[in-house]
Amino acid sequence: MSAWRSTASRLRDAQRGLGSASGAARRAALAALSELLEAREEEILAANAADLAQAERDALTGPLLDRLALSAEKLATLRAGVLQLAKGKDPIGQPLLKTELSPGLVLEQVKSPLGVLLVIFESRPDAVIQIGALALKSGNGVLLKGGREAAQSNAVLVRCLQDALQAAGLDPAAVAGVEGRADVAELLELDDLIDLVIPRGSGQLVRAIQQGTRIPVLGHAEGVCHLYLDADADPAKATHLALDGKTGYPAACNATETLLVHPAFLPQLPRLARALTEAGVRLRADARAHAELSAAAPAVESVLAVESDWGHEWGDLELAVAVVDDLGAAIDWIHRHGSGHTDAIVSEDPAACEEFLRRVDSASVFANASTRFADGFRYGLGAEVGISTGRIHARGPVGVEGLLTTRWLLRGQGQAASDFGPGKQSYTHRALPTDPTHG
Amino acid sequence: MSAWRSTASRLRDAQRGLGSASGAARRAALAALSELLEAREEEILAANAADLAQAERDALTGPLLDRLALSAEKLATLRAGVLQLAKGKDPIGQPLLKTELSPGLVLEQVKSPLGVLLVIFESRPDAVIQIGALALKSGNGVLLKGGREAAQSNAVLVRCLQDALQAAGLDPAAVAGVEGRADVAELLELDDLIDLVIPRGSGQLVRAIQQGTRIPVLGHAEGVCHLYLDADADPAKATHLALDGKTGYPAACNATETLLVHPAFLPQLPRLARALTEAGVRLRADARAHAELSAAAPAVESVLAVESDWGHEWGDLELAVAVVDDLGAAIDWIHRHGSGHTDAIVSEDPAACEEFLRRVDSASVFANASTRFADGFRYGLGAEVGISTGRIHARGPVGVEGLLTTRWLLRGQGQAASDFGPGKQSYTHRALPTDPTHG
Repeated sequence: MSAWRSTASRLRDAQRGLGSASGAARRAALAALSELLEAREEEILAANAADLAQAERDALTGPLLDRLALSAEKLATLRAGVLQLAKGKDPIGQPLLKTELSPGLVLEQVKSPLGVLLVIFESRPDAVIQIGALALKSGNGVLLKGGREAAQSNAVLVRCLQDALQAAGLDPAAVAGVEGRADVAELLELDDLIDLVIPRGSGQLVRAIQQGTRIPVLGHAEGVCHLYLDADADPAKATHLALDGKTGYPAACNATETLLVHPAFLPQLPRLARALTEAGVRLRADARAHAELSAAAPAVESVLAVESDWGHEWGDLELAVAVVDDLGAAIDWIHRHGSGHTDAIVSEDPAACEEFLRRVDSASVFANASTRFADGFRYGLGAEVGISTGRIHARGPVGVEGLLTTRWLLRGQGQAASDFGPGKQSYTHRALPTDPTHG
Repeated sequence: MSAWRSTASRLRDAQRGLGSASGAARRAALAALSELLEAREEEILAANAADLAQAERDALTGPLLDRLALSAEKLATLRAGVLQLAKGKDPIGQPLLKTELSPGLVLEQVKSPLGVLLVIFESRPDAVIQIGALALKSGNGVLLKGGREAAQSNAVLVRCLQDALQAAGLDPAAVAGVEGRADVAELLELDDLIDLVIPRGSGQLVRAIQQGTRIPVLGHAEGVCHLYLDADADPAKATHLALDGKTGYPAACNATETLLVHPAFLPQLPRLARALTEAGVRLRADARAHAELSAAAPAVESVLAVESDWGHEWGDLELAVAVVDDLGAAIDWIHRHGSGHTDAIVSEDPAACEEFLRRVDSASVFANASTRFADGFRYGLGAEVGISTGRIHARGPVGVEGLLTTRWLLRGQGQAASDFGPGKQSYTHRALPTDPTHG
């Protein structure tokens, strides 16, 4: 057996203990984690300083360094998050459905941990604690693969997670750190031991992982979000939403990448486009939009779009603009060029909004709201595991619920299937109220 | 573009129309389907007679021929099922969650079709209608690949589904039949166009498909179900459940394959074993159980089990019997040798039952009930799509719900994400009641 197969196998055993322990035990582990983060602050910051020193030697710069750096403040925020999670309701064992199959034979569908997660993330060491805490809360085992540049910070933080489990009387083997790329490649082969891969990083990383494993992958490779300005769009709202969608955080997956414009809105386009260009946005317009912008006085600068501009994720202050004949054409465009992440309409016509909401087949579909709202925190899901554009299991922003599956429990008194049938007992299939008994 | 890529792409477009149509339109299609099955009964039975004649020339026999044969009665049963489905509540658009993010900005999570299904099944032509009707109900497009021996029957039935869509003003391209094995291989490559594969057939078929595609597969390759007889098992119940589990339908995936016995129950084993052997069951016992059975007067026949008997799916009147030290050892055994399908305990000790229910990590876990209850109809799910031993998306017996995903709808009044934050608006995240508005 390979080293990783045996680690993962051991991790699955430990996870079964974690997942079937009491909610109080998992809560105690989270409380211990918060305490350990405080008690070991010095050690954590020293490891992080070593990582930072190495990063400077490796000439890492700017945002990458910022994301790598921990501080007393960041640790305090992490601890607050862990404690909030500890206080929250225990999801495991919560009944979703309860049915009397016949008197004295009662079926219950309850929430259960998924099993073993492999989480692959880039430089931020905070992710070890954020994701590790979510795994503890949801009773899942977790293999954590962070960036090489955060190796020393990650190692200390993984040890905090393991020691927190131990402190609560749980098996610390339910959490393990993963080091190199070769290890990840080996783990991605273990589809009998790992239940879900969660890559948090660039589209390139996500695509590479999706291509390279049979294990289900939760995530999104691309966020090509559209904002459709309908005939009845309010120009002020349209401008507000286009600005927010494009300039709020251009690198985010929920940023707006293409503006679709109804011909009736075209006369309003130059003014909206001017606000965008003033905010530093470069426009790539199709022939009709380009003509309108060029003819405006004063003209608005735009370049003529090429075919490959449609469905492109800019991740920057670039915006494609296309004129579509009507609402139906806008929806078809989104289905052809979109990535199924988030798409929005701006319109004062309630019927147009409802048709858009009904027909657009994306994880998130909005009317008169910025595409930037597609986010677990903004949705009120608490901690976010990721945003999924897959259609199986979880879709859109995913919180703790996305780390759970269900089990069916049946409590009887000795009933056999052959006791039922014509001339024998018959099924009642009576829905019973579900009473959440777990804290 | 390959022929199947273009068919699947066209099918996805048609599916989007089906999925976003009104519930009334989908209901009308199901009603039309029932009428077509009646109007074309002669044509259907003639096609089936041709398949049967060919099957006899090919020397097909017994159960295979039975499953291939349609009759006026079978068609009447199919029609009744279709009408029942037509009458049922429309699942699409049903809200699961409704949250006010802030006044005038309301988020809803609603049920939506998965998209495009590829269903692969063996000889029974009835499956075309059963699965096709479920797809229509759930707004999914479906590619139907039946057995070659039912080719003519399947072709007529697929046409009934298409014509039913047309009759309801929906695009008939949302349903397509698939012919040969080469076509299936080509379809299994289209992970960008097909959302879920549902193989209904032997474990060998399921395994081959799981190995050969990146598309998620709903199903189970194996059903290795255990029945654990605890120290406090009631002997009469234990016998009743072992008999039902093993002899009710030995080829079923929910049949009992291994009996685990607590040492304290061992003195009761010969009597239970005798009932099993009288019912034609051959026992493969471990050393301890074998000794107990051989020493009984009169002795009960059993052969000594070998290592490969554990975790084996017999599909026949064979039963492995092993003695385990205690409840914990039984649970470990199930995790080591089981397939995560269905496992049951027999015990009069409520604490032992609850520990078993809490700790066994299988799709279905039972106390004092036969493993044979693991079934969509018996669970009251209505039509069953299949039984999943996967942990992602759907687990255990799967009904229409397993063919659905969700979308997040956000209705605003022009709100941007940048309107929120310190010193600006803050999120209310107020849970709102969900009101099912669809019939």
